[in-house]
Amino acid sequence: MKILDLMHEEKIDSMIVLNPNNISYLTSFRPSSYSILILKDEPVLFTNQMDFEDALLNSKIHVEELKSIDELKNSLNGTVGLENSMTIETLERLKKDSSFETRITDIIERLRRIKSNDELKNIEKAIEIAENAFESTEFENNKTENEIAAEIEYNMRLGSSKKASFDTIVASGKRSSLPHADVSLNTIERPIVIDWGTVYNNYCSDTTRTIIETEKHEEIFEIVLDAQKSAIDVIKPGIKASYVDKVARDVIEEYGYGESFIHSTGHGVGLEVHEGPSLSKREDTKLEKGMVITVEPGIYLKNEFGVRIEDMIHVTNKGHVLNKIKKKINL
Amino acid sequence: MKILDLMHEEKIDSMIVLNPNNISYLTSFRPSSYSILILKDEPVLFTNQMDFEDALLNSKIHVEELKSIDELKNSLNGTVGLENSMTIETLERLKKDSSFETRITDIIERLRRIKSNDELKNIEKAIEIAENAFESTEFENNKTENEIAAEIEYNMRLGSSKKASFDTIVASGKRSSLPHADVSLNTIERPIVIDWGTVYNNYCSDTTRTIIETEKHEEIFEIVLDAQKSAIDVIKPGIKASYVDKVARDVIEEYGYGESFIHSTGHGVGLEVHEGPSLSKREDTKLEKGMVITVEPGIYLKNEFGVRIEDMIHVTNKGHVLNKIKKKINL
Repeated sequence: MKILDLMHEEKIDSMIVLNPNNISYLTSFRPSSYSILILKDEPVLFTNQMDFEDALLNSKIHVEELKSIDELKNSLNGTVGLENSMTIETLERLKKDSSFETRITDIIERLRRIKSNDELKNIEKAIEIAENAFESTEFENNKTENEIAAEIEYNMRLGSSKKASFDTIVASGKRSSLPHADVSLNTIERPIVIDWGTVYNNYCSDTTRTIIETEKHEEIFEIVLDAQKSAIDVIKPGIKASYVDKVARDVIEEYGYGESFIHSTGHGVGLEVHEGPSLSKREDTKLEKGMVITVEPGIYLKNEFGVRIEDMIHVTNKGHVLNKIKKKINL
Repeated sequence: MKILDLMHEEKIDSMIVLNPNNISYLTSFRPSSYSILILKDEPVLFTNQMDFEDALLNSKIHVEELKSIDELKNSLNGTVGLENSMTIETLERLKKDSSFETRITDIIERLRRIKSNDELKNIEKAIEIAENAFESTEFENNKTENEIAAEIEYNMRLGSSKKASFDTIVASGKRSSLPHADVSLNTIERPIVIDWGTVYNNYCSDTTRTIIETEKHEEIFEIVLDAQKSAIDVIKPGIKASYVDKVARDVIEEYGYGESFIHSTGHGVGLEVHEGPSLSKREDTKLEKGMVITVEPGIYLKNEFGVRIEDMIHVTNKGHVLNKIKKKINL
């Protein structure tokens, strides 16, 4: 296993894995409740009674039923690696009456950034389901934002996905100027920012389109589109994530809307809808072949409206756009 | 504020609050992204730029824009309280170049267990929306589990809720014997375990019904119902949570199915669909007036089928069932 090599490199002798996404990534078994993976030369997946049979069936790693925390502590040795996301409560319980040295590490998350072909196929399928659902949705003017979101999510379900990858955003009229608005019970106005995605085989999609109407909408739309295209154009292995952010930001600043682009340019997508790397000002990570990232600049004009365009990009020798749905939509 | 009294009692001088549910509970503002609440005699809510205006509008507590982590550290003093759910990564960043003493505490979660009248109304409304959605769903035999779940969720949306409180479970035929099954793309068989809920004004509902068909289903159903009724009957302030679990478990054991009841009897519900107290073997917490808990015994017969019945109970001077939907359903 590649993860064991990384642990050896970092002088970690064993590692406790609790994050269900990390467990799913390393074992092919997705816990329904509480499971603990101990990584070491002979790794063991401990599950509770409810998950045991399912884990036996699906896990690539040896499975045992979790009897007690003490038993688990006995299976640790040397310097113990811990995930960033472990809670301080869990750490306290773990350290009680034990003396092993611990080290926080993100080696699993770093490994997850590079997608295999199978992972990419799941992501592409998620995008396909989400795009079909969007295209089957009728944006009739008497519908509320909430109803539009409900229809998109229902259509994604009918496309054989079991859940949305996050709460669908439908923010219309003035509300489109709020980048993190969810949905309201207001009837839809223009423009409409729709940010939606689904999960297929545990892998996420994440896309945004803005349905525009007036000339002013179109003017802002073209700037955002220019920023997005310019950013996508510079994507290739070896480029810093912060550079992609800078390219998008520079375009928007050039047009005088720098102050209105109030979030980062993108993020990785995979088992989680937001994962590394972040495409933001201070992210020194270099892009690598196999990463899947979003590029999603936006301009938010307070009390007027907002426009965001978001596509998912596979880093090959360049930035390959995975979305097929058209960007400019007047409905 | 009651929370400040609790902090004083526990000799905590200031406290860092990151959990969005805790922030929402204490400030009436729900962060869309990253916000930090510092509790002390003069509490401050720090938000990022995106949330700032919305926070100014809704927060009961003074709002400032978060500029830097250092500024935040300066606003802490004395013994600093930390939430159970803080990650070890955040703790490490916080402790860097600082020397304050910290203590993990669940005082906010304990406070949240007792619901105010307004909180109760939101929970009741969530239950009403969820039950209406269930009753509008057609359990036609050519539908898949996934389609049934999609319809329930869509109907909850049309009832003006913005999201499900968790991934709807529709587990039918043999799959009903898996207590944590989600949904499959199989056509529905009997029995059908449906575990579903919604969110209204940030408050959750959580209910389970099992649609039965055969005499054997009915036999098991009656045992589970007996266990549930017996457990609900003993609920009153002052009773240990573990005692409610024991009463349900004893009934099921009496009928010889003790080994087939493989989860705890219930849990608190509020801003989170699972919160304290847990109704399980080792939970010494005593029930108090104002708590809202589930009672959800189940019997899971491996490779055959399962039955679970779950209602939400408000602890008054007795256990008051909040659900109105009938328990026995043959469709």
